[in-house]
Amino acid sequence: MTANKNCIIRLSKYKNALSKLKSLGFVKVFSDNLADAVGVASSIVRKDFSIFGISGSKKGGYNVDDLLQKINHILGKNDIQKVIIVGVGNIGSALIKYDGFEKEGLKICAGFDKDSSKINKNLSVPIYHIKHLPEFVKQNKIKIGVIATPFVAANEVFEIMKKAGIKGVLNFAPVNIKMNNDDVIVQNVDLVGELESLVYFVNASKKIANKRGR
Amino acid sequence: MTANKNCIIRLSKYKNALSKLKSLGFVKVFSDNLADAVGVASSIVRKDFSIFGISGSKKGGYNVDDLLQKINHILGKNDIQKVIIVGVGNIGSALIKYDGFEKEGLKICAGFDKDSSKINKNLSVPIYHIKHLPEFVKQNKIKIGVIATPFVAANEVFEIMKKAGIKGVLNFAPVNIKMNNDDVIVQNVDLVGELESLVYFVNASKKIANKRGR
Repeated sequence: MTANKNCIIRLSKYKNALSKLKSLGFVKVFSDNLADAVGVASSIVRKDFSIFGISGSKKGGYNVDDLLQKINHILGKNDIQKVIIVGVGNIGSALIKYDGFEKEGLKICAGFDKDSSKINKNLSVPIYHIKHLPEFVKQNKIKIGVIATPFVAANEVFEIMKKAGIKGVLNFAPVNIKMNNDDVIVQNVDLVGELESLVYFVNASKKIANKRGR
Repeated sequence: MTANKNCIIRLSKYKNALSKLKSLGFVKVFSDNLADAVGVASSIVRKDFSIFGISGSKKGGYNVDDLLQKINHILGKNDIQKVIIVGVGNIGSALIKYDGFEKEGLKICAGFDKDSSKINKNLSVPIYHIKHLPEFVKQNKIKIGVIATPFVAANEVFEIMKKAGIKGVLNFAPVNIKMNNDDVIVQNVDLVGELESLVYFVNASKKIANKRGR
């Protein structure tokens, strides 16, 4: 059994729940507690843990500190992960300012744009021209890049990132960037698609409710 | 067979690809073309269409205009969908300014916040105090709400939205909002989790590559 993306996202959620429990002084946690916090069945929690060889104590339950340490190790959270963002428009700027990443050891080191009016090396997260990306990525050994450009630029930026040595790309541009056989991993976040699918399900459930005569 | 969320998100992607094809003057499209554009197998494209009773011509292929119209109808895109956002911080502001929604008939009507320094009724998307949410939602018959607050506020905002009559919630706060048996649909977008899972897979593939002696 190997971990898929949903499993890893759940691990990230368990970790968040465990951090909150720890800050409240909890020492022990049960799979049922984590299942509640994350909104899955407790059997899924136990299955996720078994993939990584994590087992509870004989009496049942897990030690919070111990579990947190193991998950952090799995997620590579003992190292700071350096990230760059290309496209410093609305979404890109928001991601740069978002304080949720830094807390989790994800450090946004720099932004890149082709619009020279956006370039500013004196910010806490400096913004450089896109032409400096390859050099920056190599010097700082960056492995993770975020694309937050308009859709027309996304594939070109992806190629630039790949050539520079980026190994993982999170894409917010409204176009599907495909993983090829090269060893770069791509995750597409489709903001419009998320909202559209929500609209669909709300309308669909309204129709069902109407048929029921509600 | 009924449509799940991934199927609806794919429909949204087919629609985007079709719009681009249409603007380029294409009249006909094959499931293979759409499969390439969206990054899935062509059998999945055909299965998605069959769920909604969409079939190609005898010679194979679909008429672009016809297909676009059918998908727009399924996604409810012939009506404008009104949306509100609660939490006008970095992410909330970026979503309000993001022009990708309006193009797809998703109109963000208003933002809400509890911080009175953010309130401004004279913006193109006005920002009101959260206490005015129930009244606004009822008067404007809003069904869709976005939560972009810090995690501590998210569940409280969700309750306010539910009581006001919101039927679908897209949650960006880093906490899992659970769907209960009430008829409100929730989709959680976990930005930190997306980036963390990407980091995990990049590190995992690096380990595999190292073992292979690359």
